[in-house]
Amino acid sequence: MQNYAFILPMSVRDYECDMQGIVNNSVYQNYLEHARHEYLKAVGMDFKIYAQEGVNLVVVRAELDYKYPLESGDRFIVGLNMVRESRLKFVFYQDIFLEKDKKLILKAKITGTALNQHGRPEIPEKLDAFLQNEATVFTAK
Amino acid sequence: MQNYAFILPMSVRDYECDMQGIVNNSVYQNYLEHARHEYLKAVGMDFKIYAQEGVNLVVVRAELDYKYPLESGDRFIVGLNMVRESRLKFVFYQDIFLEKDKKLILKAKITGTALNQHGRPEIPEKLDAFLQNEATVFTAK
Amino acid sequence: MQNYAFILPMSVRDYECDMQGIVNNSVYQNYLEHARHEYLKAVGMDFKIYAQEGVNLVVVRAELDYKYPLESGDRFIVGLNMVRESRLKFVFYQDIFLEKDKKLILKAKITGTALNQHGRPEIPEKLDAFLQNEATVFTAK
Amino acid sequence: MQNYAFILPMSVRDYECDMQGIVNNSVYQNYLEHARHEYLKAVGMDFKIYAQEGVNLVVVRAELDYKYPLESGDRFIVGLNMVRESRLKFVFYQDIFLEKDKKLILKAKITGTALNQHGRPEIPEKLDAFLQNEATVFTAK
Repeated sequence: MQNYAFILPMSVRDYECDMQGIVNNSVYQNYLEHARHEYLKAVGMDFKIYAQEGVNLVVVRAELDYKYPLESGDRFIVGLNMVRESRLKFVFYQDIFLEKDKKLILKAKITGTALNQHGRPEIPEKLDAFLQNEATVFTAK
Repeated sequence: MQNYAFILPMSVRDYECDMQGIVNNSVYQNYLEHARHEYLKAVGMDFKIYAQEGVNLVVVRAELDYKYPLESGDRFIVGLNMVRESRLKFVFYQDIFLEKDKKLILKAKITGTALNQHGRPEIPEKLDAFLQNEATVFTAK
Repeated sequence: MQNYAFILPMSVRDYECDMQGIVNNSVYQNYLEHARHEYLKAVGMDFKIYAQEGVNLVVVRAELDYKYPLESGDRFIVGLNMVRESRLKFVFYQDIFLEKDKKLILKAKITGTALNQHGRPEIPEKLDAFLQNEATVFTAK
Repeated sequence: MQNYAFILPMSVRDYECDMQGIVNNSVYQNYLEHARHEYLKAVGMDFKIYAQEGVNLVVVRAELDYKYPLESGDRFIVGLNMVRESRLKFVFYQDIFLEKDKKLILKAKITGTALNQHGRPEIPEKLDAFLQNEATVFTAK
């Protein structure tokens, strides 16, 4: 496991498994979204409050590499780094590992933007400032 | 809209929308999976029967470009083409359009393989034969 | 099958099945909600528009009798009747049947109310008028 | 809060909220199921292993009283007691409370049975023994 800005331990719930007995493909996007929102909250930004103010954080592209399936009972870790990709886009690099042996389950690159009250792309001030600092940190590595 | 080997009309259900009032990101993977399974059934292969026989069709990579969000009440179309990418991999190119004005909602490339009863990648015979023919058809276009 | 004010044909999607190979318990509530919202729309009331106006239709009690499980590939019918139960409550009687042989899958009684912009129970005018007429119709049967 | 045989702390994930900004009705059944399966695992019985052996624990009736909605960010507790109702049926009494102020969110009574490899109701031996002891404990209270 590499260095992550944020780590969220989770575990599979049985209703998330499909008839193959493994976690359904779409559910990983739920896990990843939950980790992103928890991270944003941890650094002082709330998806819900933005939504209530008419500012919508949205995904514009998702890339997911499924390496190994999660099963009922599995405990896992979602690791996350966030970087600015361009003026209006930011990227979450997210990996999912099994807790017990750190086996890689999934790698994802989720590209997002924010839409203002008029539905136009515009990064809100606080997120903008945060991304500038993060960018610095990441450059420094 | 380009030519598709398969088209599935669907409509948004209210429980698929999240607090932003739009269809949640992960739900598009449900739509895409449903269209793939309906297509496979239409050409004589059943995800469920494969699963019962211990043959698991699995996604190894998903790329989704979110162009415009679906909302409550929207009727949409999932268009699909399937091509062989390599000996052990096949790809579904899937687009989602609004029914009324053909506005593009989402473009996806879903790469899959099949795992045999021993969990090893192996395309089952019928799918293998089908992909050979499809490949021909697609080359001919 | 008895008489229903509204009937909605649907079919199982594979991602709705869990590791037992049958539709997960919670998914029936999705089916039932979808049928209720489609019914309300058909008689001129939209859950989404109410929500946008700050009027929330909410479930206060759900009773579900699971008679027989739905499986992958099953086509089914949701039948629905709506009656007023009291000044502030209305009830949906909803049954799910297999399409092919009319086998009963599930019986449900869903009790709802509406909350106004202040979060207080209050049936909106149009729904109130509709329920008065419906009540008459049902008494007449 | 009364005495529970099992308590599970959980928290709302944003994707579980619908366009009303509150947790969707069906999602509570997910929470309740997850708590039941965690409880069974804690006392030595695994839903997944039963399913793999062809023994299916199934819900035959669900009654849910929705008292107050959960929202994004809410932390809550699922409390659970299990009692035998008859030779072939057992009941889970499940309550959901807000963690911070113990406000009651939902009360549920979930009635279940088990189906053996032939699809006939039959409580597996270990669960049968467990329910006998539990019954005693509950009578003693």
